[in-house]
Amino acid sequence: MLINLDFEANEPIYQQLTNQIIDGIARKELKPGEGLPSVRSLAADIGINLHTVNKAYQQLKQEGFILIHRQKGVVINPDGVPKADESYRAQLQKKLRPIIAESICRDVDELEFLELCQSIYNSYKGGTTS
Amino acid sequence: MLINLDFEANEPIYQQLTNQIIDGIARKELKPGEGLPSVRSLAADIGINLHTVNKAYQQLKQEGFILIHRQKGVVINPDGVPKADESYRAQLQKKLRPIIAESICRDVDELEFLELCQSIYNSYKGGTTS
Repeated sequence: MLINLDFEANEPIYQQLTNQIIDGIARKELKPGEGLPSVRSLAADIGINLHTVNKAYQQLKQEGFILIHRQKGVVINPDGVPKADESYRAQLQKKLRPIIAESICRDVDELEFLELCQSIYNSYKGGTTS
Repeated sequence: MLINLDFEANEPIYQQLTNQIIDGIARKELKPGEGLPSVRSLAADIGINLHTVNKAYQQLKQEGFILIHRQKGVVINPDGVPKADESYRAQLQKKLRPIIAESICRDVDELEFLELCQSIYNSYKGGTTS
């Protein structure tokens, strides 16, 4: 899987890396049980700090996306990512509220917002890269 | 307007403050031209650092939510928040993609996601606090 980082962006690099791995899982390009590079080799490959990769991997591990084995290395959770529970749903709502509040301030109406979400959902259905 | 900060949250305090002011504008509790407390007095009122308030205000100013006058002080943009343009729409899509990717990984289907967005949109229509 190709990792594209934007070093000019406001978003921290570890967060970009985390998001791209989650994106790969959503697109089914990264499959349950599939191996990921070690912290050291990924850091060297993309030319970023070990700690940055480590922070991304630790977050992904904590949220159930990957497992980190001492021997087998880093793998996409073979049991699949834990399904949404009440705590995830509450967190999702908390993330969406400020985005929707800003959209309301900027006169993006509900229909346009929902259509944008639909088109993003659709972009994951084909299994294509975007 | 009441400001509620969660000092235990992962989200930086300045971002929480920014989001709450945007939320107040979306709920029409904060109206165009309305004054906001000075950096100094808001920092003292809610017991946070001057720099934290300043960072929130600078971000809000940059994004067109508020004006900072040397004499009149801080006011909600009297001309209203700038409407969504192509750049905002691109940024909105960029913010939504990782949230939707994670929801797909966690088996939140499109319908549930859209209904959640609708319910958040609805919560701003009544003009009630939430």
